[in-house]
Amino acid sequence: MVYKEFTKQEIIDMDMYYRIQLINSLGGFKSICLIGSKNKEGQTNLGIFNSVFHLGSAPALYGFVCRPANRERHTLENILETKNYTINQVHHTFYKQAHQTSAKYQRETSEFKKVNLNEEYIGDIHAPFVKESKIKFGLELEETHNMMNKNTILIGKVIHVKVEENLLDEKGFIQLDKADTITGSGCDAYYKTNFLERLAYARPENEDA
Amino acid sequence: MVYKEFTKQEIIDMDMYYRIQLINSLGGFKSICLIGSKNKEGQTNLGIFNSVFHLGSAPALYGFVCRPANRERHTLENILETKNYTINQVHHTFYKQAHQTSAKYQRETSEFKKVNLNEEYIGDIHAPFVKESKIKFGLELEETHNMMNKNTILIGKVIHVKVEENLLDEKGFIQLDKADTITGSGCDAYYKTNFLERLAYARPENEDA
Repeated sequence: MVYKEFTKQEIIDMDMYYRIQLINSLGGFKSICLIGSKNKEGQTNLGIFNSVFHLGSAPALYGFVCRPANRERHTLENILETKNYTINQVHHTFYKQAHQTSAKYQRETSEFKKVNLNEEYIGDIHAPFVKESKIKFGLELEETHNMMNKNTILIGKVIHVKVEENLLDEKGFIQLDKADTITGSGCDAYYKTNFLERLAYARPENEDA
Repeated sequence: MVYKEFTKQEIIDMDMYYRIQLINSLGGFKSICLIGSKNKEGQTNLGIFNSVFHLGSAPALYGFVCRPANRERHTLENILETKNYTINQVHHTFYKQAHQTSAKYQRETSEFKKVNLNEEYIGDIHAPFVKESKIKFGLELEETHNMMNKNTILIGKVIHVKVEENLLDEKGFIQLDKADTITGSGCDAYYKTNFLERLAYARPENEDA
């Protein structure tokens, strides 16, 4: 098998667009979620993110990466202002609409209207959920961490969960392929999935993997 | 459609095992990677992680979450000691072996041997790569960030990339389904993927998503 290799210096010297594609492809498949937020004036915002990660279950915590605030970052501004947001899974039926939220709309434009997805409100949670999403949760901002490249990692506590009942098994597991949740790679590639299996808790004695 | 909902208090009061499954399922599909490391004495370690995320491409940075060091965490200890590690994509041919690396082996046991994957060394990079992986990269530790739940986020700079040449297009993009890279959800579910498409850079004027 023929391999292509890039050294530290070649990565630094690489054409910027080539490096963006290459580096974004290296880490495997990505979570694709829509993050809903609303400022104090009631202006809603919806943005697609591919860096949502699970941090813990007790307390229930999720993180995601926000790009530098050197231009308008409506999601980041709204969350810092209200401490409140929603994360909504993206399914095959609306992944193109989800992608379109990445366009640079003006602050006074709601991506919900522009891409034709519906706002949904639950209890006293300030931020909008995506009505079309089958698996979604509300969060309260707990921590922010500043990264060396001026990105910010936001950590939030899960304060509400809403899931289509037929996707949830008796032990709390949700089979995401049944929901037609999509995954992504690079900056702009989308995929469906086929379930392989769930593997048993690994112990040192089961070595015949 | 019938939904199941869980309030903030219900999430706190939930059976621990149910909460682990539920909360782990919420964020969508996950990157599944093997992280290779080696301590100063030459003892290698290989661990499966589902929290690898892209942080930036200039400089080229990746992050991942390490659980609390309240018991032996060989990957974390090795990386803090040597500032050096590798991230290797997991393909359909060896995902069961990758899963088995999550068993609690003793420090003096190398998961490479136990699960029958091969170490590969590139240049002067101290940590082992996974020979069987088609897409892999070496990193230098740049930053650590302590989270409220005692997890640590490690941020590393990409210092070497090795990719099967036939997977890489002329613009730097790698089509991961062609590599049979797998994705995961929850704690233990694995999936193959089917490519849908790459979408064009979104602009406000293309509203017909």
